[in-house]
Amino acid sequence: MEAQSLLNNKPERAPLQNDLLLRAARGEDVERPPVWLMRQAGRILPEYRAVRAKMGGFKDLVESPVHASEVTIQPVDILGVDAAIIFSDILVIPEAMGLPYELVEKVGPRFPEVVRTVQDLKRLRTNVDPEVHLSYVLDAIRQTKRDLAGRVPLIGFCGAPWTIFCYMVEGKGSKDWALPRRLLWEQPAFAHSLLDSITEASIAYLQAQVKAGADLVQIFDSWAGVLSDGLYAEFMMPRLQRMCDALSPLVPVTVFAKGGAHLLPQLADLSCHTLGLDWQTDPRKARQLVGEEKTLQGNLDPSILYASPEVIRKKTQEMLSNFGTRRHIANLGHGVYPDVNPEHVKVFVETVQKSA
Amino acid sequence: MEAQSLLNNKPERAPLQNDLLLRAARGEDVERPPVWLMRQAGRILPEYRAVRAKMGGFKDLVESPVHASEVTIQPVDILGVDAAIIFSDILVIPEAMGLPYELVEKVGPRFPEVVRTVQDLKRLRTNVDPEVHLSYVLDAIRQTKRDLAGRVPLIGFCGAPWTIFCYMVEGKGSKDWALPRRLLWEQPAFAHSLLDSITEASIAYLQAQVKAGADLVQIFDSWAGVLSDGLYAEFMMPRLQRMCDALSPLVPVTVFAKGGAHLLPQLADLSCHTLGLDWQTDPRKARQLVGEEKTLQGNLDPSILYASPEVIRKKTQEMLSNFGTRRHIANLGHGVYPDVNPEHVKVFVETVQKSA
Repeated sequence: MEAQSLLNNKPERAPLQNDLLLRAARGEDVERPPVWLMRQAGRILPEYRAVRAKMGGFKDLVESPVHASEVTIQPVDILGVDAAIIFSDILVIPEAMGLPYELVEKVGPRFPEVVRTVQDLKRLRTNVDPEVHLSYVLDAIRQTKRDLAGRVPLIGFCGAPWTIFCYMVEGKGSKDWALPRRLLWEQPAFAHSLLDSITEASIAYLQAQVKAGADLVQIFDSWAGVLSDGLYAEFMMPRLQRMCDALSPLVPVTVFAKGGAHLLPQLADLSCHTLGLDWQTDPRKARQLVGEEKTLQGNLDPSILYASPEVIRKKTQEMLSNFGTRRHIANLGHGVYPDVNPEHVKVFVETVQKSA
Repeated sequence: MEAQSLLNNKPERAPLQNDLLLRAARGEDVERPPVWLMRQAGRILPEYRAVRAKMGGFKDLVESPVHASEVTIQPVDILGVDAAIIFSDILVIPEAMGLPYELVEKVGPRFPEVVRTVQDLKRLRTNVDPEVHLSYVLDAIRQTKRDLAGRVPLIGFCGAPWTIFCYMVEGKGSKDWALPRRLLWEQPAFAHSLLDSITEASIAYLQAQVKAGADLVQIFDSWAGVLSDGLYAEFMMPRLQRMCDALSPLVPVTVFAKGGAHLLPQLADLSCHTLGLDWQTDPRKARQLVGEEKTLQGNLDPSILYASPEVIRKKTQEMLSNFGTRRHIANLGHGVYPDVNPEHVKVFVETVQKSA
């Protein structure tokens, strides 16, 4: 009922009062770098945990537009970040394709069913319709845009085809993803087919997110780091390019390939606006490899937020100086760790915001 | 009784019939690159599984010199590799220091007790004496040297201080090792103290391995990849340097920092002979970063051994050509995966050996 009313209610789009993120992504002049944090909407905030405690489980929260929207906006209110990112999970795509996921507390994601053969692919839904199969995310985006009322941009996201492929094949987390990598060599036809299906669903999903109000989209390739240059070029780059080509005429696009320092030379050729860097990647070297035509996002070591405020300030300033003032979106090099003190997160955010 | 007789029996050292590994490590001329595989002594071989089935568990095998020696030599007989590596585990060092490990089938290592504060460190054994606390490894080395009778060199090994620190703090495997990284920032005095203890025990252990007969030693930094340049330089490099300085006058030393492509510029300064490369690292770029004074080891993507023999041959030849003929020890970019067909491993080994 609520979902239906949201669907019928065309979201109002207040003009953005803070569009630093979008200007930095497009390479326009900015007074200072914008700053947000991966996983900012989540366990670090007591206010999040209070909402979470009212829900049955993590998925109930993801699937409740009102509550997902509430926790999406919390870090804007509490931490003062320059962007919101919709509270959701990359695993909603496999679920929309017909493989439901579970999130087991302290263990991680689990898929009761997986796909490992061409035969298995017949069980998957083709033609994922985001307005039908992922309406809860789109409703959450519409709700969030209304409630943000233009204060900061809203980031939409999805997983990269490789990362989603890993979960759909393995069915759970893995250190080295040997099984999905095995299938690239042993069953390339299966791999290409599944990767294509994921890519098509993801493009439709991101386009629907933009239509619902996302001002920028980020593609998370969390497991890029286990692939060699050659495999990435053959299996992943054409699909990422397709995604960037489909989205970048609409909104700025960010690609974050974790562990992917070795992939930067090829990622630089994507038609995206921004490349995310993990904390192991040197910003100066990344700039040399990538050239001047992309914005770089990152990359403070998330573990530095365990240090004292003085150390956090010093390391954040060092990071800012390594990136330089042009085409930089300040962030951590990976998601914020859940047991970090929110006051320490504020020190990071404020250090960037005072750097003008 | 058996252990005692081994200790009293000074091992005979037959001259090496195949010393390709040692010559390649020292940068001397070789007819072709030597080849061995990380984790070659282990689950890939049915012959290993037969020995393993007779034992109570993995640790019983590690702690039985006769059987550890038997499985150490199996890959020399069956796969025809140019080196043996003693069958053991990097976690014997925490155990010798007073933190016993368990290996849980299909889960991985577990430590019933961990150390996380300066107070906890008082529970650890200082002055680890390898001949007392790790005699089973030294006995296995002596036995293996006798039985190999000079056919190929025997490699000894240990974990790097950071990797051992990770396990002693976390108590089990982890994706990002956030807790041990947190302690580097929050409790640097604890971290430095524990890292020093690990370093001292590891030096004594490697020296004892050499005395027992190891012809080359490798230091495995399996979790180097989660550390930024700066933390690695501050916490790890002085300790690795101490280890290399202590060992490299005795035997060639290899340092393998997995995920450590970003660390190569500093690793190049170590007084070791060889640096191992994972499969994500481009051999040509690594050579540029490291210079001409080191041997490089690696780095075929272990998942390529799932491909057809034709593809394995082609990719192995490509790898050989990327490394060039000088100062290269052929290997995979990480341990061989346990479910790989041994015939495919032979294709890899033979392709290198026919490359002369």
